[in-house]
Amino acid sequence: MPESAWEFVTRAMAELRALGGAVSVLSWDQETFLPPRGGPARAEQLAALQGIVHERLTDPRLGEALARAGDEVAGDPERAAALRALRFDRERAVRVPGRLVRALARAQSEGVEAWREAREASDFARFAPRLETLLGLRREQAEAFGVPAGGERYDALLEGYEEGMRVARLAPILSHLTGWLSPLVDRLCAAPPPDDAFLRGRFDVEAQWAFTLELLPLLGFDLAAGRQDRSAHPFSTGIDPGDVRITTRLFETLPLSSIYSTLHEAGHGMYEQGLPERWRASVLCSAPSAGLHESQSRLWENLVGRSLPFWKGMMPRLARRFPSMAAVPPEAFHRAANRVERSLIRVEADEVTYNLHIALRFELELAMVRGDLSVADLPGAWNDRSEKLLGIRPPRDAEGCLQDIHWSFGDFGYFPTYALGNLYAASLYAAARRELPGLEAGFETGAFAPLLGWLRAKVHALGRSLPAEEIVRAATGGGLTDEDFRRYLVGKYSSLYGV
Amino acid sequence: MPESAWEFVTRAMAELRALGGAVSVLSWDQETFLPPRGGPARAEQLAALQGIVHERLTDPRLGEALARAGDEVAGDPERAAALRALRFDRERAVRVPGRLVRALARAQSEGVEAWREAREASDFARFAPRLETLLGLRREQAEAFGVPAGGERYDALLEGYEEGMRVARLAPILSHLTGWLSPLVDRLCAAPPPDDAFLRGRFDVEAQWAFTLELLPLLGFDLAAGRQDRSAHPFSTGIDPGDVRITTRLFETLPLSSIYSTLHEAGHGMYEQGLPERWRASVLCSAPSAGLHESQSRLWENLVGRSLPFWKGMMPRLARRFPSMAAVPPEAFHRAANRVERSLIRVEADEVTYNLHIALRFELELAMVRGDLSVADLPGAWNDRSEKLLGIRPPRDAEGCLQDIHWSFGDFGYFPTYALGNLYAASLYAAARRELPGLEAGFETGAFAPLLGWLRAKVHALGRSLPAEEIVRAATGGGLTDEDFRRYLVGKYSSLYGV
Repeated sequence: MPESAWEFVTRAMAELRALGGAVSVLSWDQETFLPPRGGPARAEQLAALQGIVHERLTDPRLGEALARAGDEVAGDPERAAALRALRFDRERAVRVPGRLVRALARAQSEGVEAWREAREASDFARFAPRLETLLGLRREQAEAFGVPAGGERYDALLEGYEEGMRVARLAPILSHLTGWLSPLVDRLCAAPPPDDAFLRGRFDVEAQWAFTLELLPLLGFDLAAGRQDRSAHPFSTGIDPGDVRITTRLFETLPLSSIYSTLHEAGHGMYEQGLPERWRASVLCSAPSAGLHESQSRLWENLVGRSLPFWKGMMPRLARRFPSMAAVPPEAFHRAANRVERSLIRVEADEVTYNLHIALRFELELAMVRGDLSVADLPGAWNDRSEKLLGIRPPRDAEGCLQDIHWSFGDFGYFPTYALGNLYAASLYAAARRELPGLEAGFETGAFAPLLGWLRAKVHALGRSLPAEEIVRAATGGGLTDEDFRRYLVGKYSSLYGV
Repeated sequence: MPESAWEFVTRAMAELRALGGAVSVLSWDQETFLPPRGGPARAEQLAALQGIVHERLTDPRLGEALARAGDEVAGDPERAAALRALRFDRERAVRVPGRLVRALARAQSEGVEAWREAREASDFARFAPRLETLLGLRREQAEAFGVPAGGERYDALLEGYEEGMRVARLAPILSHLTGWLSPLVDRLCAAPPPDDAFLRGRFDVEAQWAFTLELLPLLGFDLAAGRQDRSAHPFSTGIDPGDVRITTRLFETLPLSSIYSTLHEAGHGMYEQGLPERWRASVLCSAPSAGLHESQSRLWENLVGRSLPFWKGMMPRLARRFPSMAAVPPEAFHRAANRVERSLIRVEADEVTYNLHIALRFELELAMVRGDLSVADLPGAWNDRSEKLLGIRPPRDAEGCLQDIHWSFGDFGYFPTYALGNLYAASLYAAARRELPGLEAGFETGAFAPLLGWLRAKVHALGRSLPAEEIVRAATGGGLTDEDFRRYLVGKYSSLYGV
């Protein structure tokens, strides 16, 4: 009996998942264990695998099978969802000519290298020509993807991270967000800051490491289906629901850094571990959007990990690792972990000012993609907008427009998904609190399972079978909004800061 | 301008090398860091990559390019050697039908599982049906490869590990070897064994680990182009000359185990690190045979690592990690590290009895492949031959015919390469001693660079451009022989044991 179109698609999906998993392992290894001289060979291995993924995805036989399989799976919503997702991926791959794929790959690797040097020297001029090239190629790629009807070029890039999202919808949301965040930041920064003197000093990095490893299974991160290692920049990789790897970083003088890196990456990791095993070989075994993925990391990092009940539960454990902490009341630690300040570096920003950093990047990258801002004018524009939005002007570009790696890949359209993640996180958490009585009291005894179970059922188990906003809507009763986030932030910080 | 046939071959080789590197990373990770629940996905990833390797290797366009490229590279011996090696690999891949490839892959994974259970329970009956299946498939595969003119079925399997080797040549060599080894073992085992009381006790595993990491760069293993980790069974993987990974294992009560595992795997690893970087993307960037590869591990493990000058140099370092060793003279340590005894387990055997273990396996697997020994009769035949060859009869099959993993993959033809490795190692080492005055005196001050440099020039740098025996002949002036090995063993042990 000849293979049906659906069977062909199933085989292709399984192979693509396996190849994607292999790429993830190689990338993870590159950031954790790769010997210094192994770089060139690793680049070749990754390029070969990505080339094969592209070859398989654009194979005309897959196109035909996808076209024919629709009838075969009629009435089966799961299979229909898989066809839809794979068609989406294939369409985007097919539309970009091989020449552009290769030009982008080269520009990205040159871009990262130039960016590292430029940041090191705080010399934007060294990065500018590469950024110019990347911007040009991304604009070309956006045209190749196809600008959505009634939309604009940036939308075609955004679509790669947040399917269905458009500037026309996103810009007003972010603008509304900054509208109430700025005065909130003004009020909080005018108040006396919380005392965090007990966080200064030296904290043994091995004890920090042991504490993060103690946290992981408590939260619900399954160490039989994943692992934590160390890397220069924390990240998470979902290779398979049974193989999820996260990293953290350890600084002797920054004890909160390892804890919040671990909580953040564990949030991503528990999402990946919660993807349905029966979809292991399906395109549905992933998140529908970067924003929804980020909602899980930010939820555990901030909504849980910066709450008072969390620290009431964790302080005795922390004090066993760091005896000086035994004298610190949970309330004082909680205040110190929620210090709000005008700062230059996004990845170190508190949860109140964080979205202002995002708004800044979104505005500027949108203007560049639109052609309203030239690369040469970027540093000045960054500094001016930083002063306006964040109330602080970078003394040098290394702490300004050169601080993030994203633009060195030409990743325009990615930054706003961080803000979406914060908004989704607040809405999901608010819904969980409504539905799970005693949720936060449970944190005091380390009972995180009810929350994880709720997220598993409402978010993780759905994989990529529905759009992100539909998943949130089904879980919370409402779509994308900054209302829950506003209520959470204003409530928490008004009380913490007494303003 | 259209691509030349050689250019096509070059691209194909580069992709095959990259895919092979990816397979190696995934396999390494499987034995070191893979979370327990990551196994099923890893199996899928490896199967997908191996399928693509097979697809690329058997691609008719590669066959045509290989046929046409011969003329293009006339007069360039390096390119001609690459064409020859790739044709060899392709021929073997093409000859085995896809059905048989898949049947073997399944039988191997079922075989390993059954073998683990059978060994655990020391119950050969649980493994026998799987071994029967594997034997049948391997015989079929040998027929598919094609029996060499004037040869036999086993030759076609042997060819996969040791190109050009034949039973007709190998059997007399091994028979000659056992002919003088058996009486030597009799003499040594009749003498009083060396005192190794100082090796009994507990040796902190972290101190053992640190000592092996101290040894590696001293020997010449480049930790910027490789790494060492821990695994249940030590192994080495050459991903690229700049990325070579070895493992060791640590037992608190067996201090020699980690040292000799590290020396053995470092020998393999330094070979891989010494392959020419300019061949990084070529089929020539590998060893020509398993036996030659094994010669490098055995050379460092035994010829160097069990020599008196080595321990004269290393004892002060060892004593810094293990203060009780400060009272042990190097001569006493050297004797203890060269204790000869009739033992059951190959991987723990001393260098004198080791080849008797190999002869036993070669005889039995050859008889099985020939059809002269049935699977059902294997345990009895093993025990009888063990008694005859090694002078010891296994009390149970777990310590007899179930001890090694190799047959659980159906790896018939691999065991004899261990013996070839021992013979090549002795011949290469004898030549190095002749050519490098003061070689062994240098070990006393940690000067291993002259030996490594010699091996680099004579062996490593040639990759797979020549057959193993030609490489040995050019380096030593003689081909495959047990004469150097005999002289080494008899000289060393007669003096050590005073017999």
